Amino acid sequence: MKKLSIGLVGLGTVGSGVARILLERRQELSARAGVDLELKRIVDLDTTSDRGVALPSGMLTSNLAAVMDDAEIGVVIELVGGTDVARTIVLDALGRRKAVVTANKALLAVHGREILETASANGVSVSFEASTAGGVPVIMALRDGLVANRVVSITAILNGTANYILTRMTQSHVPYETALAEAQAQGFAEADPTLDVDGTDTAHKLAILARIAFGADFHFEKITRRGIANIDLADIEYAGELGYVIKLLAIARRLAPDEADKAGGELDLRVHPALVPAGSVLAGVSGPNNAVLIHGDAVGNILLHGRGAGQMPTASAVVSDLIDVALGKAKLTFDGFRVFPQRSPTQTLADVSHIQGSYYVRFSVLDQPGVLAHIAGVLAKRELSILSVIQKEARTTGSVPIVMMTNIAEAAGMTQAIDEIDQMPFVTAPSVWMRVQRPSDDPTDEPAGQVGN
Amino acid sequence: MKKLSIGLVGLGTVGSGVARILLERRQELSARAGVDLELKRIVDLDTTSDRGVALPSGMLTSNLAAVMDDAEIGVVIELVGGTDVARTIVLDALGRRKAVVTANKALLAVHGREILETASANGVSVSFEASTAGGVPVIMALRDGLVANRVVSITAILNGTANYILTRMTQSHVPYETALAEAQAQGFAEADPTLDVDGTDTAHKLAILARIAFGADFHFEKITRRGIANIDLADIEYAGELGYVIKLLAIARRLAPDEADKAGGELDLRVHPALVPAGSVLAGVSGPNNAVLIHGDAVGNILLHGRGAGQMPTASAVVSDLIDVALGKAKLTFDGFRVFPQRSPTQTLADVSHIQGSYYVRFSVLDQPGVLAHIAGVLAKRELSILSVIQKEARTTGSVPIVMMTNIAEAAGMTQAIDEIDQMPFVTAPSVWMRVQRPSDDPTDEPAGQVGN
Repeated sequence: MKKLSIGLVGLGTVGSGVARILLERRQELSARAGVDLELKRIVDLDTTSDRGVALPSGMLTSNLAAVMDDAEIGVVIELVGGTDVARTIVLDALGRRKAVVTANKALLAVHGREILETASANGVSVSFEASTAGGVPVIMALRDGLVANRVVSITAILNGTANYILTRMTQSHVPYETALAEAQAQGFAEADPTLDVDGTDTAHKLAILARIAFGADFHFEKITRRGIANIDLADIEYAGELGYVIKLLAIARRLAPDEADKAGGELDLRVHPALVPAGSVLAGVSGPNNAVLIHGDAVGNILLHGRGAGQMPTASAVVSDLIDVALGKAKLTFDGFRVFPQRSPTQTLADVSHIQGSYYVRFSVLDQPGVLAHIAGVLAKRELSILSVIQKEARTTGSVPIVMMTNIAEAAGMTQAIDEIDQMPFVTAPSVWMRVQRPSDDPTDEPAGQVGN
Repeated sequence: MKKLSIGLVGLGTVGSGVARILLERRQELSARAGVDLELKRIVDLDTTSDRGVALPSGMLTSNLAAVMDDAEIGVVIELVGGTDVARTIVLDALGRRKAVVTANKALLAVHGREILETASANGVSVSFEASTAGGVPVIMALRDGLVANRVVSITAILNGTANYILTRMTQSHVPYETALAEAQAQGFAEADPTLDVDGTDTAHKLAILARIAFGADFHFEKITRRGIANIDLADIEYAGELGYVIKLLAIARRLAPDEADKAGGELDLRVHPALVPAGSVLAGVSGPNNAVLIHGDAVGNILLHGRGAGQMPTASAVVSDLIDVALGKAKLTFDGFRVFPQRSPTQTLADVSHIQGSYYVRFSVLDQPGVLAHIAGVLAKRELSILSVIQKEARTTGSVPIVMMTNIAEAAGMTQAIDEIDQMPFVTAPSVWMRVQRPSDDPTDEPAGQVGN
């Protein structure tokens, strides 16, 4: 039976889960997959805290060389996190011709090209199923399962913290701050939730998915992102009245040639809150869950949905990568597949302001005659047509909201119209706008595609 | 670059889709996956019909030997269907040490053991991603992605025809016959829909999933199955009033030791219509879609959802298997993994009558005093408690429905109570009953699991 000796670097929450599976299920895994996974050394600066897993004496050390210098160790699991120390560890392991398994989405998003090139140069593989959507096997589905497809688009909910907060705001009508505090109390948000709520974490994962789906390379920082920290409860409620739910979406699309020309790039990548139709599958993704909706030209829409983070779901994905390495499959994939970006030139991403869409806009205006006519006039001048309007009585003295949903238009024209309106004397606060996902992105509605040249 | 020469047997709907992808995307696939897939010969008895795909002259033949005798052909795609000719073709190909890719769920369900043993004996692989849930990569997700998990249960909607019919009945309040006729008109049901509506096709797919999930072998015919042809529109409407939707479910569970003792087997496999909570993810699977909800002890619940059949989705899965074969990964999986049932003893399945559950029951009774008391009395005697009751005014002269949902109980006790009640003079028609899925089987509600010994 094939045997793989493993060095685990980083014994935090996920690392402890991986250690548990490897130690408690060694026999069971070898019986199932025909490979013997030996967890040989664990490296962590903290060698004393109890992580709830019984480690054989001598396994845990603070000395990284115990893993790196051990020629028998064929794979290093990097669970340190961050992009500095983790990068050094990964490059060092690869340089010593050890395969790497990592859950580190930030590292891959920011230094993906360097890491993949180093792996290639050293003839070893890098596996990262756990980096995106936790235990949901989305990397393999996209890379292997849908390989016969041209990917048209990916629309995903990739951050459980943000989704938990939005779910709470929607279901219990509590403001952002209350929902965030709840998420922290439930263990779904960290003390500093910045990367989760500002869209950065979602963008990291989107970068990974987009690179696999489109075989593309690009600069991570160029991905447009907006977070959820400024979402007003009022917008969630108006969205609900219009038949929509607000979700923090990650979107990756390959633009048609004419769209790509206009937007200055073929790939449209962005992270932002958006209104999704209340009955759609993405609207049904609640709490700390993740979901990835992949539209392939042959399969139509495929949805993968489940717990996107957490100790055991993420550990489950790490172990599946280890078995792939142990069987020799990871290497065959890594050598064969050309989807990895180290073999692609760096692309310019599409300018999101030239991407068409439908928009939700909330104007805050004085409650006086002629205001709606003025606003409608500015929109009409820029050929923005209005699909629906909600005008409410004043909530605060002297100011009323006017909520509109527009027809399809370029973002640039819409934001220019808003800028113009926001200069008008009857406007009491800057207008709020969000993109709207139309109902078509749903396995229920979308017919399976046709393959064509 | 690795090259794989392919023989395709069966140029029907799916076969034509596979031929299209292989012929129109050969360059694109080799650029993406690093393998050259050469479609060399196609065998079909009909060599003249136009399938909408341009075949190079001489590729299509009615002579099976053109594939079998060609030593260069390394893989045979079996898309003939059925269990007789297909079995002969597959065994012949394996005997000649050609790998096999098939979408034939009936063949695998009924002759799986023989086929897998023959493949093993000849040192080649059998791949069948396309056999279950069409283009949704559920086989690889279960086998590879969730390999670190003990699978607790699978709950799935695996037949698009049946799901389309039930969706139409639910959404448009049309009776079964009307919905079936619509499904046929839409191309979602065949002229003879028997295997789709009686649960057989669903059971074939369940058998495949259960064998992978549990590494088990069993006799296919022992899977309990009930279809949807007798579902009354009234039951769909009462289910709706109770907050449920009726779906044709495939269920595979590993029973706890005490349950397994009582039921005479560890594996609970069944196909039947059931009530699922209206807000659950499975209730949201509509039209011709499929969905598979896998509960793993580490990942919690994972849902895969998409088009479960059709030309291009199924062809997409076949081509992903071909690439797996071409890269050499299929062979590594097949050799390494012990989940394939040829290495497991045949198990006795649990007796479904001893499986506990909650039930929906509709009694048809005379509209006279004391009836409800009589029914409740019989149920109470067998310790069946009632969660909810709906009693309606008479729809047809002299007969009223009494609809109940029971608490958890063994099916045997419940059916005995129904048999006793059905003998009573006030009963006007045999009672109807169905199992009820409680809300826990939902990624939304279920916490990610803990791994334990």
